[in-house]
Formats: sequence, C-alpha cells, structure tokens
Amino acid sequence: MRKLIERVFLGGVTRDAADMDDGAAIPVGDKWLIVTTDSHVIQPIVFPGGDIGRLSVAGTVNDLAMMGATDPLGLTCGIVLEEGFAIDELERLQASIRTTCEEAGTTIVAGDTKVMHRGEVDGLVINTSGVALTRRVVRDRGLQPGDAVIVTGTVGDHGMAVMAARHQFQFEEALRSDVAPLNGLIRAALNAAGTGITAMKDPTRGGVASALHEMAEKAGVSILLREDAIPIRPPVRAAAELLGIDPLFIANEGKALIGVRPEYANVLLRVLHAHPLGRDAAIIGSCLAEMPGTIMLDTGFGRRLVSEPDGELLPRIC
Amino acid sequence: MRKLIERVFLGGVTRDAADMDDGAAIPVGDKWLIVTTDSHVIQPIVFPGGDIGRLSVAGTVNDLAMMGATDPLGLTCGIVLEEGFAIDELERLQASIRTTCEEAGTTIVAGDTKVMHRGEVDGLVINTSGVALTRRVVRDRGLQPGDAVIVTGTVGDHGMAVMAARHQFQFEEALRSDVAPLNGLIRAALNAAGTGITAMKDPTRGGVASALHEMAEKAGVSILLREDAIPIRPPVRAAAELLGIDPLFIANEGKALIGVRPEYANVLLRVLHAHPLGRDAAIIGSCLAEMPGTIMLDTGFGRRLVSEPDGELLPRIC
Repeated sequence: MRKLIERVFLGGVTRDAADMDDGAAIPVGDKWLIVTTDSHVIQPIVFPGGDIGRLSVAGTVNDLAMMGATDPLGLTCGIVLEEGFAIDELERLQASIRTTCEEAGTTIVAGDTKVMHRGEVDGLVINTSGVALTRRVVRDRGLQPGDAVIVTGTVGDHGMAVMAARHQFQFEEALRSDVAPLNGLIRAALNAAGTGITAMKDPTRGGVASALHEMAEKAGVSILLREDAIPIRPPVRAAAELLGIDPLFIANEGKALIGVRPEYANVLLRVLHAHPLGRDAAIIGSCLAEMPGTIMLDTGFGRRLVSEPDGELLPRIC
Repeated sequence: MRKLIERVFLGGVTRDAADMDDGAAIPVGDKWLIVTTDSHVIQPIVFPGGDIGRLSVAGTVNDLAMMGATDPLGLTCGIVLEEGFAIDELERLQASIRTTCEEAGTTIVAGDTKVMHRGEVDGLVINTSGVALTRRVVRDRGLQPGDAVIVTGTVGDHGMAVMAARHQFQFEEALRSDVAPLNGLIRAALNAAGTGITAMKDPTRGGVASALHEMAEKAGVSILLREDAIPIRPPVRAAAELLGIDPLFIANEGKALIGVRPEYANVLLRVLHAHPLGRDAAIIGSCLAEMPGTIMLDTGFGRRLVSEPDGELLPRIC
C-alpha cells in the first residue's frame, strides 16, 4: 500500500518523483540545501535500545547524512498527540530528543503540536524534517560496476528488537535496536574516501534487501552479496531463524550501505572500524554490470536471487 | 493542553523556545533560511472552501511569508494514513495540494508516507514543513507604539465554515473557509512598505484575539481595536451571534495581521486592496505604550478588554 500511495500521491506532487531520494537537493549559492521529512508511527513508542524520540531525530539526521550532508542546520518537530497522553512520558521523550540532538550536534529549531481526541490517534505521531547544506550531494543511485558495497555494522537489530518488544518474545540474549544518528560516522567516511564514495542509503523499512534493490535498479547494476560477510548479531540470527525471517529484510535504524570505488574500500573500512558506530562494518558484496537491478547472494554453496520485499514485513516499525 | 505541551515539550528541545515565532531563522551566507513545520489534523478533511491538502500547503506557505520569506524553496509533505483510506479521495487531495502549490509558486520537494491500522488514526494527518530564504526577517514581536494594525481581510471565515460543516448547521448564506496561500499578497505588501512593516502574524488557531495577544505581549505594547473597523462577512457575523462566539476568537487560514509604522499605513492599505486576497483589508487598531500585553476593544460605547483564549475554541480546526 505504501508503494501504491507513493506512486499515486507523491508522484503527482513532488518535483521529480521518478528521481526521489531520501530527500531533496536544492541549489543555494555554491552549495546544495538538503531537505528531508519523515513521519514516525512506531509501536511501541519505547523499545529496547530507543524510543520514538530518538528514532525521529536519528532518522532525519541519517536521511540528511545519506545525501552527504553531515552537519544539520536544524530539525523541525511536529507532534500529533492523543488527548490524555501522559505528561511524564512526554517529558521522557523530550529528554530523548534532546540527548539524540546533542549526539548529532543539532537542535530542534521549529515545532508544532496538535492534539486529537482519545481514539483518534494511537498515542502519538512525530514528524521530523531536516535541513542541511553540503557542497557535494551523494545520491542513492551512484553505484558503478566494480564498486564494493559496505554495510557499516550488524543487520536486523532494530526490526528484531521492536518485533520482540511488541510480541513480548523471550530470547536468551537481549535484542536491542541500533537506532543512532550516523552523521559523525558518515562525516568520517566522506573525509576518508571523498568522491570514492559513489552512493549511500540507510536500510530502514524493508531492510538491506529493499535498499540494495532500489540502489541497484536506479544505477542499472546488479549486486553480488557474500552471505558469510554480512554481519549479524547472534541473538538477531537466532530470533530470525526461529521466526523464519530473513535478516536482510529487517529494518535497521543505525546503519548505512555505502558504495565505494574498489581502490577506496579498504581505507574506508579502516576509518569505519575506528568509529564506535562502525566497529562491525564489512564489505558485503560488489557491483556488476550484468543483470541490472538484481541482487544475488553467494551462499558458499551457490548463488540465489534475493527477492524484493513486496510490502512491509512489520507495520509501524519506524 | 497545547500550551502545556508546548511549554513542557518544545521548551526543552527547541533552540530558543522563549523566542519562538511561526518558524526558525537560520543565518546562511548573507541571508536567512526560514524553516517552519505544521501538522494538520482538520476534521472534516473536506470543507466548504478547501480541504486538508490546500490547508497544509497554504498554512506552511503563510508561516514562511509571515517571517518575510515570500518565495518558498520548497515544501515537504509527510502523510500518515489510516489503512483503507480511499485512493480516489487521496487523488483529490493530491490535486488540491498541486493546485495550491502552483498558486503559491512552489512544489513539494520531499515526501514520506506511513500507514497505520484501521482505528489507529482517524483518516489522515498531513505534516508540511517549508524552507525559504529571505534577506530580512519579519518577526511577530516587532510592534512599536504608534503602529497601525492591519488585517488583510474578513475575520472568522475558516473556523465558522469548518464548524458549520462539522455540525451540519444550516445557514442561509454559505460559509466558506478563507484558506489561501498569502505569499503573493505579502510580497506586494513588503515591496510597498518595506521596513515600515514592523511585525506580521497569521491569526490561525485562537483567531485574531490570540495572535494579537501574542504580538502585544512579545513587543510590550497594548493594542486598541476599533470594533466597527473589523471586517466580518455577514454570514459569519450571523452564525457567530447565533452560536454566541466572538469572531475575534475564530480561526482564519487566509489572513494576516500586519503592524506598520503609521506613515506607511495608507500606502500599504492601497496595495493590499489592489490584490485579490486583500480587497477587504482594513486598519483595525493601533499600538500604545501603556498597559503592555493587553488588547482593548473600542465598541463605540466604551472600551472593554479582549481576553486571551485559554484553549482552542474548536479541536481539529487546522
């Protein structure tokens, strides 16, 4: 339904819908103003590793960062609340928003609040938009044959933690969302590899599989992944196996996929490993010219196609 | 509740909460980047004279314009939909958004869609944020003693039309919302009166009374209104009398309050009258140094204090 809506609705109103990225790039002087927006409807609003406040700030900071804009000028915060929402819970979310803003070196510069009657909205919805200037825009469509594909850390943590919290699954080891603002990590990556970085995207809804499909389709390349190179935390792997879910399809909120020219791959990996949010970064595959738009997985026993998720695995995951 | 939330919540996270205006002004080169955000929860989503799509675009364009930024670089549009929302209704809202954007000379540059289950959100919620550059920021706090206070047209049209639509009141003459993007009108006003314009604000939630209270308090002036000078359409006046509601407390979505140095008041009024959206513009009062923060109404029989609305007259009016 989301894809249908985006085609029907945003297709008719956005400036260049066919060309949509995580945000818009508008020329301002000799720079680009990056503008992004995201609504957050996650349920439950507090989950292991984070809450809707942290998610809102990190999500918007990350959308800016994925386009090369790692120094936000500021974020906006529009809140729609259900009447009777507890003020102390609101204060905790406020603290979480403030802490995450500090972590990302930004602030909320404008806000708006609307209240709906009880039963008209489930708890609260937060919209965050972000603005940032950058000299160079990194697109999600820039992959070239030969590029290495790097993921900045373990896969599937956010979606699995939220699913476990929602359904109160009991697992031996704690599952925790990876939600975090990545602009510091991406700043380090861009400083190290510069124009060697050809494309970036954060694998949120639909996970790594969905993000790579979009990147490959837009760029007209295929991507060959090495299954054993994909970092997955043991409790996430165990939970995914138990539930029969492919970790590649699970949402992440603190990870980036980076396409990089092969000669820059190792230096980039070293820089990522030196950052607290990139310790588990790995080269998980490479881009090929043949069969554009496809994602293949080398399992060690052969290759299989990775399908494109045809919907959200979980509603209200972000 | 809104005021409490804004104090509790936004007070802790925004850069300069005490200094909040309709948007933020961020220095960029030799200009200011204005950033605004608004969530729209109006019910019903289609009402006489407009719909939630037109309201969303006009509301954000107007917030930018009130700060002196009459040429939006672009808007973002974040939609939260209830599962099962009719696609043809969505298409009509899309057309409305597109038309209103064209009217304002802008586009939606970035969008996001989230779907909630049936019963988790009532219909749809739209958040729009806007960005624009301006060389001069007009603040809502700039009023000075001696300033004339102008309203750009009739008062109370939006709130009364929505109230009538919601409760299916039958009145002889049709009530219609005034929802419209004002950036063209404000551009003409700024071209005519320049720095003679000391303050602007659009009287949305809480109406003219609420907006003037905020302007007077921030500026440390009082405002004396002349009741017979306030333009009100006869059907709005009739409906307000019938319902016992003061039109000064009713929301507008296509009007601005403008503070102007007295020597510029008449030239500004002529320019407003020449614009289709300013034909009913009127000087409704003036600013005084005494009793700062108060709004007085000269009824022709004497003066009375205009109270500050201590809540929303109508929930989900915008």
